[in-house]
Amino acid sequence: MDPMTFVLFGATGDLAKRKIFPSLYNLFLDGKLPSSFSVIGLGRREWSDYTFQTHIEQSLKTFSRRLPNETFRMEEFLRVFRYCSLDITEYEGYQKLLETIQRREKQLGIPENRMFYLSVAPEFVDVIISNIKESGLKSGSGWKRLIIEKPFGHDLKSAQDLNEKLNRAFAEEEIYRIDHYLGKPMVQNLEVLGLVNPMIQAFWNNQYIANVQITASETVGVEERADYYDQVGAIRDMFQNHLLQLLMMTAMQLPEQINAKEIGNEKRRIMEFLRPLRKENVVTNVIRGQYISGKVQGKPVVGYTQEPGIKDSSMNDTFIAARLWIDDPFWNGVPFYIRTGKRMKEKLTRIVIEFKNPLKDLYTSQNKVTSPNLLVIQINPNEGISLQLNIKNPLTNQIEPVNIDFSASSKHVPEAYELLLFDALRGDSTFFAHWKEVELSWEWVQPILQAFEENITPLYAYHSGSMGPDASDQLLQEDGFKWWES
Amino acid sequence: MDPMTFVLFGATGDLAKRKIFPSLYNLFLDGKLPSSFSVIGLGRREWSDYTFQTHIEQSLKTFSRRLPNETFRMEEFLRVFRYCSLDITEYEGYQKLLETIQRREKQLGIPENRMFYLSVAPEFVDVIISNIKESGLKSGSGWKRLIIEKPFGHDLKSAQDLNEKLNRAFAEEEIYRIDHYLGKPMVQNLEVLGLVNPMIQAFWNNQYIANVQITASETVGVEERADYYDQVGAIRDMFQNHLLQLLMMTAMQLPEQINAKEIGNEKRRIMEFLRPLRKENVVTNVIRGQYISGKVQGKPVVGYTQEPGIKDSSMNDTFIAARLWIDDPFWNGVPFYIRTGKRMKEKLTRIVIEFKNPLKDLYTSQNKVTSPNLLVIQINPNEGISLQLNIKNPLTNQIEPVNIDFSASSKHVPEAYELLLFDALRGDSTFFAHWKEVELSWEWVQPILQAFEENITPLYAYHSGSMGPDASDQLLQEDGFKWWES
Repeated sequence: MDPMTFVLFGATGDLAKRKIFPSLYNLFLDGKLPSSFSVIGLGRREWSDYTFQTHIEQSLKTFSRRLPNETFRMEEFLRVFRYCSLDITEYEGYQKLLETIQRREKQLGIPENRMFYLSVAPEFVDVIISNIKESGLKSGSGWKRLIIEKPFGHDLKSAQDLNEKLNRAFAEEEIYRIDHYLGKPMVQNLEVLGLVNPMIQAFWNNQYIANVQITASETVGVEERADYYDQVGAIRDMFQNHLLQLLMMTAMQLPEQINAKEIGNEKRRIMEFLRPLRKENVVTNVIRGQYISGKVQGKPVVGYTQEPGIKDSSMNDTFIAARLWIDDPFWNGVPFYIRTGKRMKEKLTRIVIEFKNPLKDLYTSQNKVTSPNLLVIQINPNEGISLQLNIKNPLTNQIEPVNIDFSASSKHVPEAYELLLFDALRGDSTFFAHWKEVELSWEWVQPILQAFEENITPLYAYHSGSMGPDASDQLLQEDGFKWWES
Repeated sequence: MDPMTFVLFGATGDLAKRKIFPSLYNLFLDGKLPSSFSVIGLGRREWSDYTFQTHIEQSLKTFSRRLPNETFRMEEFLRVFRYCSLDITEYEGYQKLLETIQRREKQLGIPENRMFYLSVAPEFVDVIISNIKESGLKSGSGWKRLIIEKPFGHDLKSAQDLNEKLNRAFAEEEIYRIDHYLGKPMVQNLEVLGLVNPMIQAFWNNQYIANVQITASETVGVEERADYYDQVGAIRDMFQNHLLQLLMMTAMQLPEQINAKEIGNEKRRIMEFLRPLRKENVVTNVIRGQYISGKVQGKPVVGYTQEPGIKDSSMNDTFIAARLWIDDPFWNGVPFYIRTGKRMKEKLTRIVIEFKNPLKDLYTSQNKVTSPNLLVIQINPNEGISLQLNIKNPLTNQIEPVNIDFSASSKHVPEAYELLLFDALRGDSTFFAHWKEVELSWEWVQPILQAFEENITPLYAYHSGSMGPDASDQLLQEDGFKWWES
């Protein structure tokens, strides 16, 4: 791994505190940082290096999966962090920043490899990018990379605008768009699961698979993000990015060579084969929901429009369920059902592959219930794979479903940000969202945004603590299926 | 289930005490005995009904999986048992027995359905069968059935002779040959596993399966059975019956209709496609072993020829491993490896399906080890299904095997004899060894018996507590495989 300077915009912010510092620390403990590594934290506040380092230490004590203590070489870790106060809208600051970085590069004897991490509100991206370019920060002999957080646009047009701005300073292969769902170990396993398991490869096609169900449910409500969330809803906050990425990772064909370019091509191919939804078809394929009051895990909670900062008249979606079709020979005829929402019964992310049930008719005629085979990929909060198979119960001689499980111990599993940062540091963008995927996702979602905007689709209320509105269940019932709950 | 009389030859013997009484008792508790059920126990000793019932009570207290107590309706159960003293070689006794049975049938008002259970040494079968026929016990208006225990012959000729004798009194469909391995729940599951699990059906063929390994290992030595065992060896005691039955159950194609006749046809078909072994090929496909001293689970034990009752010069096989091929389109090219032995490392019966490993070459060139997928069917002592799949370890980014398991709680699982007796009582012979299977098994085994007899094949010594002689490992190594140990 190349020696480099890690330039962190938004170093005093929440994401840095909760995710970035702890991830860097755990990479450091695992020996996964470059031997020469320098971090420059940037923020508006006037902090000293010491204040910054104390702030980082505090963050590690609260958020690191391995808690720091003397034996865990914390001093050594903190020593690489420097702080620069910067008004990100002011050009002069960037020139000063460049001098600081160059001085440090010389001091440490490291090449001009620079990783810019933008952990800032989206409205600041434009000005930062311009200034990075104009000030000469982007110049010099080493490589330059950009890590950027979501949201990546508000719709197709704004995403394209944003990308164009990035491209003025950074080429596509220099950009690492973080979708932290792609950093989860079980999602990364989707890439190889079939390839390294001939057993799975055998049934991984539309001859055997009846449908695929992807769920990402949250128990929390809008929390302190009312202003932001009421503008974006579940469709932009979760569906367009995380859930469509999960769809791509599940559906993609395994390329001959596993690398960023090939994976990117395969994911793009899935999006290209995704049957487009016209605005007038949204109503029959997409369910929009908003939570009303109810009980979540025993605790009474208010409805969305009673949340602080949300207007009574808000038509924002806090739940979305959709039916999608991938019209390639491989997935032809297999519906993908996707749902995500806030204030649902439980917090989980998982993918359920339901298999065709050729015995259904036979057994139904005998008044027997048969369960289909299921392959369940647990992504969050637990990680694991389980299969639901049928076996004959020797006591009753009846065919009954049993579960066979593998669960990863979550204790030693690196967090998504660790895996993603490590990949970015070594220049591997396999598990980042590539521009074409982002663009095609917005393109696919666009008619839904319009249908919501124009209120062509109903807004279904659902009780907090439920698994969404009844309409979501009906969506599957139309096809003879049901959501498999945990 | 029809009312019937259950006529038990060998009622004072070991099998009755350990298996038959406890099984009948548990069937009784589960409401799986006929409403009118009468048992006549037969033995040489002069016992009263009371002595017999006390003997049964003692057997239940020692061997029943549910221990009897007042609430468990023991008195009610014992009441159906009567005892008759009988010299099985004397014709007069059978006439007396017939009278006793008829008296009891009238008394209970039950039809002349009679189940004859022969739990006796093989040399007595002939005379019992003749007497059953001559005395008129086999006559009368109801059905008559015969349950018979192994051994079913000593070689092809003796098995044919025995069967001919049975057939003088009983038709094939009246005969229930017990192979208690067929009564084990996971073996019975083999029948339906593919049929009710499309997921398993998908990979259950020679496109995906590399080989099949069937192991039945024991830790015990020859025990008190020296005289008998030294005459039969592992080949007759285990291989010709239990292990070839497991092979048939594993390899058979699922018939459209699951019933005794169809299952019998399918099993016969497997035996017909089993590539015959010529005597001169035994040496390259069959490994014969005999245990020498060693340690079994920490305890030092003597070698086979030091066992009481075994001659120093005994060339008897206490271990056998074999490679078999089923030359039908389905299994073509998939070797079946079978092994069984005494004084081995652990007591277990299991079937391992090893899948082809297309990544092997790719990864070997990168100096990486990859494990094949395995489907493991645990039969004994624990019951379960497990899969070995590969997943990517997020810490190391390496592909590593993980196990996903289903284990049946063995507490409530009925014993093999319960399941088999229940089937016999209701006239279902699906899980019994049918004549054609037995005959074809002997036919297939015959060249091995001759090769052993003529000492064409070496007798390999193996240490007690090992998994058999090295030659057994080499048998698989020749094909690029290895035994998967637990």
